[in-house]
Amino acid sequence: MELADAVLAGDRLALARAITLVESRRAEDEAAADVLLATLHGRGRDSVRVGISGPPGVGKSTFVDALGSFLTADSHKVAVLAVDPSSATTGGSILGDKTRMTRLARDPNAFVRPSPGSGALGGVAPRTREAIAVCEGAGFGVVLVETIGVGQSEIAVAGMVDFLLLLVQPDAGDELQGIKRGITEVADAVFVNKADGERHAAAQRTRAEYEQALGLLHGAGRRPAVFVGSAHTGSGLDGVWQAIRTVAAPGSPTRARRRAEQARAWLDAALHDQLVARFLAQQAATPALAAAYHEVAAGLASPRVVARRLLAAS
Amino acid sequence: MELADAVLAGDRLALARAITLVESRRAEDEAAADVLLATLHGRGRDSVRVGISGPPGVGKSTFVDALGSFLTADSHKVAVLAVDPSSATTGGSILGDKTRMTRLARDPNAFVRPSPGSGALGGVAPRTREAIAVCEGAGFGVVLVETIGVGQSEIAVAGMVDFLLLLVQPDAGDELQGIKRGITEVADAVFVNKADGERHAAAQRTRAEYEQALGLLHGAGRRPAVFVGSAHTGSGLDGVWQAIRTVAAPGSPTRARRRAEQARAWLDAALHDQLVARFLAQQAATPALAAAYHEVAAGLASPRVVARRLLAAS
Repeated sequence: MELADAVLAGDRLALARAITLVESRRAEDEAAADVLLATLHGRGRDSVRVGISGPPGVGKSTFVDALGSFLTADSHKVAVLAVDPSSATTGGSILGDKTRMTRLARDPNAFVRPSPGSGALGGVAPRTREAIAVCEGAGFGVVLVETIGVGQSEIAVAGMVDFLLLLVQPDAGDELQGIKRGITEVADAVFVNKADGERHAAAQRTRAEYEQALGLLHGAGRRPAVFVGSAHTGSGLDGVWQAIRTVAAPGSPTRARRRAEQARAWLDAALHDQLVARFLAQQAATPALAAAYHEVAAGLASPRVVARRLLAAS
Repeated sequence: MELADAVLAGDRLALARAITLVESRRAEDEAAADVLLATLHGRGRDSVRVGISGPPGVGKSTFVDALGSFLTADSHKVAVLAVDPSSATTGGSILGDKTRMTRLARDPNAFVRPSPGSGALGGVAPRTREAIAVCEGAGFGVVLVETIGVGQSEIAVAGMVDFLLLLVQPDAGDELQGIKRGITEVADAVFVNKADGERHAAAQRTRAEYEQALGLLHGAGRRPAVFVGSAHTGSGLDGVWQAIRTVAAPGSPTRARRRAEQARAWLDAALHDQLVARFLAQQAATPALAAAYHEVAAGLASPRVVARRLLAAS
């Protein structure tokens, strides 16, 4: 297959096109995307997948730029993807602007994929897992997946990566502790960013607070480490990368267990996706589905009962 | 049908059993649940559905207790449900403990449904829409749906109610503004709770901040009102209820439009649900599905490609 060959040969334009293909929800793209994924499968088996999360303003893009550049300087090839559930009503894309990663965007050993525009909250999840597989197939040994710091996107990205890093900033305040709970539960490490200049003491306080909070949260079990550093100066990057490698490197039992679980969840998601797509394709030829939407919108019957009737007839 | 008759007759134990029935995911309950929903459909068409959201610690249960009691004193029958996406890894139920609504739990004109234990993040959404329909069928003219203040649950509840009220507290700080963005976009009004005693001035400041933020967010369009009050003293409840009635009462065009949209989304969700359930029931008789999970967990093939193969064979 030409596209797969070009991806394997390191053609970056082909890589971008391949990601667009596997992310596509157009029925006519499915077969080619399946062939591509099957061809690339298994390549890049030793890649390391790192999720990077944190609240707005914490400096995620700057951190990704810094960590990515640190890694390419150490001979890694680094791909950057974004999981962006977008805003529910505006549909706007919040992050992932390539221009915010100034070093990495110009780095020949890095590939930065701008954030997709479509939102996930309408029920259509972006196909980030497929995009990761394509990047790995193209020879990128490290895939950084950036996510915005709100609820569901962290949970989603935790299900796709070997290691989830939560970025926080010095003295973010007590208010966030409750909100963060769901995130800190799935994070493998916390990095207190912006610990430069006069914020150093505040960063150390924040580290101590997180260490205490994580101790309470995780008890005697696995407790995420808390790092302090600065994406601007580069301090702390080496330490956090060593922590990532411990958990996420090939051979790690945690990584093996997670990848197996994640593959099963991916199969679930793909089955859901394809079942719905097949049903809609079947229904497109009949007026029954449109009539059903009208019926429920007019309040004439319970949607669940109407769904049962549609399925019984299909 | 006996259960429907008992629900219609106001039997509260039957109501609790009916909700359990429609929330059930056991295949053998589906037919009875469908019959119940079909029987109750259209009753309680004039009900008002209010979502109540806000960050942990803002006093949601106390507010629901106070607003519910205010409404039952005004001859309304009030049902309280909870949407709880739960914690992804602990599966713990965070809210909805009946004992936290001390007045409402003893009120003969109120029905408080404790929070379901199952999480929604694993892909199985709690069937809150079905539970709302049952409460309405049982004659409850106001349904209050409480949700925890984190990401996805607000978006979910916004798709099930006529009006979404966001609770905040005085001087919650700048840190939350970014996090709240997704929530304030879907909220119909904001209520600054705990405006009692010495927190009154802080509450007024918070109101001014929200009015400014909402003005920037919504521009010249519909701008949610900001109320100040206290669930403890009862101040402000009357004002916010009048705002709710304006948008959510029968005859409101906003309400009519939302209910039509929500019914279509419910049909979508029910179709997804039932398609997956039917597929799994078919597959249960064959070893192909279990083999597929093993195959992807072992990393032997792309989950998406395996899903396609399974569907082609079904």
